[in-house]
Amino acid sequence: MNKNKMWGGRFGASPSEIMQEINASIDTDRRFAAQDIDGSRAHARMLGETGIISREDAAKILDGLNTIASELDDGSFPYRVEFEDIHLNVEARLTELIGAAAGRLHTGRSRNDQVATDFRLWVRDAIDRVLTGLAALQTALVDQAENHAETIMPGFTHLQTAQPVTFGHHCLAYVEMFERDMGRFSDARRRLNESPLGAAALAGTSFPIDRDMTAKTLGFDAPMRNSLDAVSDRDFALETANAATICAAHLSRLAEEIVVWCSAQFAFVQLPDDLTTGSSIMPQKRNPDAAELIRAKTGRVNGAAIALLTMMKGLPLAYSKDMQEDKQPVFDAVDSLELSLTAMTAMITALTVHKDNMAVAAAQGFSTATDLADWLVRVLKMPFRDAHHTTGTLVALAEKKGIALDALTLQDMQSVEKRITEDVYSVLSVENSVKSRVSAGGTAPERVREMVSFWQNRLK
Amino acid sequence: MNKNKMWGGRFGASPSEIMQEINASIDTDRRFAAQDIDGSRAHARMLGETGIISREDAAKILDGLNTIASELDDGSFPYRVEFEDIHLNVEARLTELIGAAAGRLHTGRSRNDQVATDFRLWVRDAIDRVLTGLAALQTALVDQAENHAETIMPGFTHLQTAQPVTFGHHCLAYVEMFERDMGRFSDARRRLNESPLGAAALAGTSFPIDRDMTAKTLGFDAPMRNSLDAVSDRDFALETANAATICAAHLSRLAEEIVVWCSAQFAFVQLPDDLTTGSSIMPQKRNPDAAELIRAKTGRVNGAAIALLTMMKGLPLAYSKDMQEDKQPVFDAVDSLELSLTAMTAMITALTVHKDNMAVAAAQGFSTATDLADWLVRVLKMPFRDAHHTTGTLVALAEKKGIALDALTLQDMQSVEKRITEDVYSVLSVENSVKSRVSAGGTAPERVREMVSFWQNRLK
Amino acid sequence: MNKNKMWGGRFGASPSEIMQEINASIDTDRRFAAQDIDGSRAHARMLGETGIISREDAAKILDGLNTIASELDDGSFPYRVEFEDIHLNVEARLTELIGAAAGRLHTGRSRNDQVATDFRLWVRDAIDRVLTGLAALQTALVDQAENHAETIMPGFTHLQTAQPVTFGHHCLAYVEMFERDMGRFSDARRRLNESPLGAAALAGTSFPIDRDMTAKTLGFDAPMRNSLDAVSDRDFALETANAATICAAHLSRLAEEIVVWCSAQFAFVQLPDDLTTGSSIMPQKRNPDAAELIRAKTGRVNGAAIALLTMMKGLPLAYSKDMQEDKQPVFDAVDSLELSLTAMTAMITALTVHKDNMAVAAAQGFSTATDLADWLVRVLKMPFRDAHHTTGTLVALAEKKGIALDALTLQDMQSVEKRITEDVYSVLSVENSVKSRVSAGGTAPERVREMVSFWQNRLK
Amino acid sequence: MNKNKMWGGRFGASPSEIMQEINASIDTDRRFAAQDIDGSRAHARMLGETGIISREDAAKILDGLNTIASELDDGSFPYRVEFEDIHLNVEARLTELIGAAAGRLHTGRSRNDQVATDFRLWVRDAIDRVLTGLAALQTALVDQAENHAETIMPGFTHLQTAQPVTFGHHCLAYVEMFERDMGRFSDARRRLNESPLGAAALAGTSFPIDRDMTAKTLGFDAPMRNSLDAVSDRDFALETANAATICAAHLSRLAEEIVVWCSAQFAFVQLPDDLTTGSSIMPQKRNPDAAELIRAKTGRVNGAAIALLTMMKGLPLAYSKDMQEDKQPVFDAVDSLELSLTAMTAMITALTVHKDNMAVAAAQGFSTATDLADWLVRVLKMPFRDAHHTTGTLVALAEKKGIALDALTLQDMQSVEKRITEDVYSVLSVENSVKSRVSAGGTAPERVREMVSFWQNRLK
Repeated sequence: MNKNKMWGGRFGASPSEIMQEINASIDTDRRFAAQDIDGSRAHARMLGETGIISREDAAKILDGLNTIASELDDGSFPYRVEFEDIHLNVEARLTELIGAAAGRLHTGRSRNDQVATDFRLWVRDAIDRVLTGLAALQTALVDQAENHAETIMPGFTHLQTAQPVTFGHHCLAYVEMFERDMGRFSDARRRLNESPLGAAALAGTSFPIDRDMTAKTLGFDAPMRNSLDAVSDRDFALETANAATICAAHLSRLAEEIVVWCSAQFAFVQLPDDLTTGSSIMPQKRNPDAAELIRAKTGRVNGAAIALLTMMKGLPLAYSKDMQEDKQPVFDAVDSLELSLTAMTAMITALTVHKDNMAVAAAQGFSTATDLADWLVRVLKMPFRDAHHTTGTLVALAEKKGIALDALTLQDMQSVEKRITEDVYSVLSVENSVKSRVSAGGTAPERVREMVSFWQNRLK
Repeated sequence: MNKNKMWGGRFGASPSEIMQEINASIDTDRRFAAQDIDGSRAHARMLGETGIISREDAAKILDGLNTIASELDDGSFPYRVEFEDIHLNVEARLTELIGAAAGRLHTGRSRNDQVATDFRLWVRDAIDRVLTGLAALQTALVDQAENHAETIMPGFTHLQTAQPVTFGHHCLAYVEMFERDMGRFSDARRRLNESPLGAAALAGTSFPIDRDMTAKTLGFDAPMRNSLDAVSDRDFALETANAATICAAHLSRLAEEIVVWCSAQFAFVQLPDDLTTGSSIMPQKRNPDAAELIRAKTGRVNGAAIALLTMMKGLPLAYSKDMQEDKQPVFDAVDSLELSLTAMTAMITALTVHKDNMAVAAAQGFSTATDLADWLVRVLKMPFRDAHHTTGTLVALAEKKGIALDALTLQDMQSVEKRITEDVYSVLSVENSVKSRVSAGGTAPERVREMVSFWQNRLK
Repeated sequence: MNKNKMWGGRFGASPSEIMQEINASIDTDRRFAAQDIDGSRAHARMLGETGIISREDAAKILDGLNTIASELDDGSFPYRVEFEDIHLNVEARLTELIGAAAGRLHTGRSRNDQVATDFRLWVRDAIDRVLTGLAALQTALVDQAENHAETIMPGFTHLQTAQPVTFGHHCLAYVEMFERDMGRFSDARRRLNESPLGAAALAGTSFPIDRDMTAKTLGFDAPMRNSLDAVSDRDFALETANAATICAAHLSRLAEEIVVWCSAQFAFVQLPDDLTTGSSIMPQKRNPDAAELIRAKTGRVNGAAIALLTMMKGLPLAYSKDMQEDKQPVFDAVDSLELSLTAMTAMITALTVHKDNMAVAAAQGFSTATDLADWLVRVLKMPFRDAHHTTGTLVALAEKKGIALDALTLQDMQSVEKRITEDVYSVLSVENSVKSRVSAGGTAPERVREMVSFWQNRLK
Repeated sequence: MNKNKMWGGRFGASPSEIMQEINASIDTDRRFAAQDIDGSRAHARMLGETGIISREDAAKILDGLNTIASELDDGSFPYRVEFEDIHLNVEARLTELIGAAAGRLHTGRSRNDQVATDFRLWVRDAIDRVLTGLAALQTALVDQAENHAETIMPGFTHLQTAQPVTFGHHCLAYVEMFERDMGRFSDARRRLNESPLGAAALAGTSFPIDRDMTAKTLGFDAPMRNSLDAVSDRDFALETANAATICAAHLSRLAEEIVVWCSAQFAFVQLPDDLTTGSSIMPQKRNPDAAELIRAKTGRVNGAAIALLTMMKGLPLAYSKDMQEDKQPVFDAVDSLELSLTAMTAMITALTVHKDNMAVAAAQGFSTATDLADWLVRVLKMPFRDAHHTTGTLVALAEKKGIALDALTLQDMQSVEKRITEDVYSVLSVENSVKSRVSAGGTAPERVREMVSFWQNRLK
């Protein structure tokens, strides 16, 4: 940001200043300094063990890299924009620390495979953090589901009351979504976990390097099979950003629900003070800012994915400088997602549920009409379409009278369908409606409790 | 399209006409008529076997569905816009064919889980077609790689000659990309392959349905675990569209290369007449239209993914009508991708490679300078950074003389670094350069041949 | 669609079949058949008047084109896929109708400037339809604003009640948004209204064509100034799609509000039956499907813009075949927008407003706290920040007592700030709050009425 | 960035820490500190002149704001994250500087209209910088066009040689594109140039503020007409980002051409050393990094537009916290564009054109075949379609003989069409071809020179 602010309007700058401005990436790629050191350590050790460089040089290099790692940790590492990127910054520092031996580190490697390795390692770490965040959110949702396995709320379609469901069941729907997200991130992690190191500039190298060794050291499953692909591939960035878009969509849905539920009109839930912003003059106001911001961050994540896809469109092999622009979108997508997951977990954990408001709402809108129709099918053996029609007539009657379905008298009922018996009232309460939905995956409290156990076991 | 043309500017239409116009989906969802029949067959059979409806009714329904399937096959099925969507069209036809029993088919199910089932089945079929298309393209690329394991071309970075590589190696880089695409589509297929059928409207049902049975009949691995999620989830569409975006990016890169290589200036390859468009006045012109169109279709696919993501943003559970708009983007993405894969396979298969032009280009630009530097490291034990510097001086000398690197005399060489010997010339030809890159994943012909075998085995 | 369905999986098709499939555009570009005829008429007339062709030939061509125009009108024009696109279809038909003279029509023109002209004319017509639709929607909103200049509703921030506003004022906010949309579409129209005709293939022509004449005939302001730009430019498509994205965003906001307001919990408005879908078993259900679909179509429009931007990225001059893919996204964006505008206009026109529910909601949440603070500033001359603080204390007191702000006694008030007088109650009712907001652009009924007049005049 | 790095994985953070992390915007909105001061000055002056606050208080506030402006200039202003955003930071500082009077500044205003004002002012400044950058780039292109009004290059379609054009003409095509961009940015500026200040929180205010006065002071054309719209509108951000997408598309096309033209195979142009990156071992290498980065930044800009559109989708009125996320995408789009314009201007200015290579390429591919066809039409009065066919036969003959079109003997010519005369050779050279394209907007040097004059006048 500083960089750009400084820049604004400098149309009189010299060509070399402009070139430094557009070309230097050190402000961005310093974020994977640690990964760069790890990659260099693995490479240096391999060069030593294969005899491509002497064991003494390898040891010196490793010592120097350890020193740099400490400098990065304690904040004393001297980042210098004149060295353009993180790789040259590290190499320059290494030369200062150990002298000529530093010049042997780059044997059989190039910046092209080096940056591909570094960025993969960073994305792999990021995915691991996201997976942790997803599991934490799932745990918070399962906890609420356990507390609210019997809490009845309206199930909506079109934001209109449709049928009663349990709040626990609703929470578990999101657990399913986030489980698929975990699957996508895990698949992305597996697919990215191959080592580009050793592809050199693009063609491989004539040095007898051992790519299996460096791959293993860095925790990769195997070396990538094609050197051109290794330096040209940014699928791991694209796939991670794509996985983030779907996860962000899920978060936006839950965020929207929280915003709607926090309105005075719904009043289904309440967030604690420290997760809302108030107003100095309206102390009752609890603006669900965190939910709104999570909803908004969907935009950032979608934007990042489009940025990466646009950037890669039509790039010939192998490396093109365009690829340097892949970092910021990935950082932005990952940062947005991590922060959203954390904030959502905090909200779900701290959510107070207004059961009474939910219950009142659940009973509105003839929400058990389907149960009545199903009773007609089950007990009177009516074809479903006919049962639907009969139910419609009964609901119209209740609506005309301005009463709920279960406030119709048996006589009322029989005026429409004479075979209806007293037994019908057993299905017209929201409690019984919910209890009856025992089909696999249904909203009945017993099913919800089974699923809570299922998830508790899996999340252990 | 007709629909919309007809519509243009009808701001005077009546509310009910407008509603039909915006609401009806039959023009779109007729594409999954076959899947709708399959879903209904599975549901009807299950209703019969569990005794929810009588075996006689089940048999009648299945007979009727078979008749409709035939009508769909032979084109005689009467699509009617007044029945809004494919589900109601089928049900109306079924009623015409078998009478009242048709009304029992919808027992324990709803349009919400029905459409979720149908669309999943359609997407699953689409993924299978895409996987077939990807394998065909890989096969075409491996065939070219086998033919051109020794064909030398310039390896480019920044579209500048960097180091010589083999054309076979270049082809195999794309095989790797398409392999990851297959992985993503297969993962998406696996994740989508759970059955929403039986979720009913959103809450499950009180009928004793057997969701395992219908799931199994339809080839799903299992029923989905949560009924709210089952009817609200469109991850399968999003993930498939996302997988398509990365695949389209790969295709756009290869398409760009073909366009550039077909230019008179590169003249690396030639497409056959039936895959280009000519010009009646410039008969030599072979416009690579198919490659350009594939490159352009990246836009369609990216647009489809953004359409779906935008649509799903912030939707509360469970079903909202917004979700009806998920079909067209998925159809467009899949159609674009299938057509692109087919056209690309045809181009790769029919590509004529101008080896001579490639070879001449590969030798330009001091493309073996890295080999010289590596020789200095390997033979003279110079640190790589010093070797780089010495090579730079030698290349500058050659450039000043206007000759290639291997046209420098030994005396010239020794004037820069006196320890250089005759042996150095062994690494300065593009042939030897390529041959020397034997590191794992390298461009050496022997490595390329190994990888060709690897892929031939895998693609069997 | 048929095309693609037919295509699915035909990986065994011959190269020439594939080429026809990917290359032919007649299924798409038949939508601008009328514009193609108009362009050809203008060109033919100019060729005749400048003497480039004989007046007799020009007359014959014009006769033939008139016949084709009639055939297009009555649906008898024979579209044939073997003639690839609309231009060649028209030319082929013209040859059938008038013989050899048809061959003179293409003098001094090329398909590149022809399609650029046709598509511009189509987009210009589309913009005109969208402008009509926007004005109709504004009119509907102004009508509601007039009816509801005094109807009080809660003004929300964060979907939390903030301050009371009038429903009329709320409607007029959207009139402003759609006014800016009209501005953007009008600017796009003005910018596109230059004629590419006469640019020929890319370089201009040596025939003494009169580009001013054809531009004038076709209603263009002037010929484009650069022939390369004329055939390479798709800004008019991009700018129109971009204008559509912002308009769709506005529509999505209003659609979201309608969905929320139609919920049982808000119940602020009601849509008529013919603009909702019901449920055969829940006759009270009025699903706001049209609003949901409008909200969803935002995705289609955003997707179209991204499709076009992706497509144009990195295309070298002049014409590339990629540009053929510009039609479908523009058609889709325009169709989606037109239909959305029409449906939204119908909904706004037919909306029933539940004033009572709005009024009750407006009084909730201490919505006049700001008025109290402003009174303290105005009457007691307190600094605003202090007034805020004092108000906060008073609201907290009211909240503790579980009463509204104007239910606090004067004694309660003075316990917090002793200078408060009876006069304060004059600002605590929602009616007075709203009436007091007379600043320019404020929500006071008198301001709303002024703005209604302003818009009624402008929309005349 | 630091913020996020610090954050990574802190899933154990307390709710209030999480809230601060997601909610605070000071790291972002400090970029419009200067605009915030300007807005406050205008507001304070108006409050004083209208008597809403005393002249003494107004004077104190203005003094304090001046001090803060100085602190911002010299970098001594104390940004503090505990004050959340730039507005509260400035107000807190003002209170420190001038005491209680600071509390009167916020009279009749709210953060909602304040941030809307600040951000508009920032975007207006940004547009002005972009317009300056566009004019500079146009000037550089016109300069090259003047130098190269007669320089012949191949005009490409499908990257295949089509007809000869002049390089000056090619440069001017981009001048046209950037002129339309200027139009779009100017239109956006005009449309945004209305003042939201005085809308207060959302409903206007009961204080007798003078919105015309503040609008005028801040250089706005007028106050916005609707207070709800004023605080809810982000069209100015969306429209600016949208304008940037099309401009970025233009830049990407020119960047792509530069990359292709810099390849050894084309060698049409050369960039100076200080605008390329070299290689220490391949001193001849001049990687066109700046062009590649400009091409890539298209992705960033498209991503920003999508981020904003996604964010605004479906937001109910008035202010929602989602809108806070509008800053970063706009900053990113504007920064990317400004930097791209600057770098592109530097490249165009410094471009060396290899006329000889262009000329050789222009003569390839029977590029004057159209001229031959036109000759047949003009001189022999053949219908264009017949002339096309005859030309095709002649080119096929030349191709078979392996010679250029003008190397065919008159006898060869007459064997195909006996009426051809010696005169035909006058149109077969690329020089004559180019000279003959004198139609309005054509590539003839005389037309190019006229357009250079036109642009030089306009750009004065």
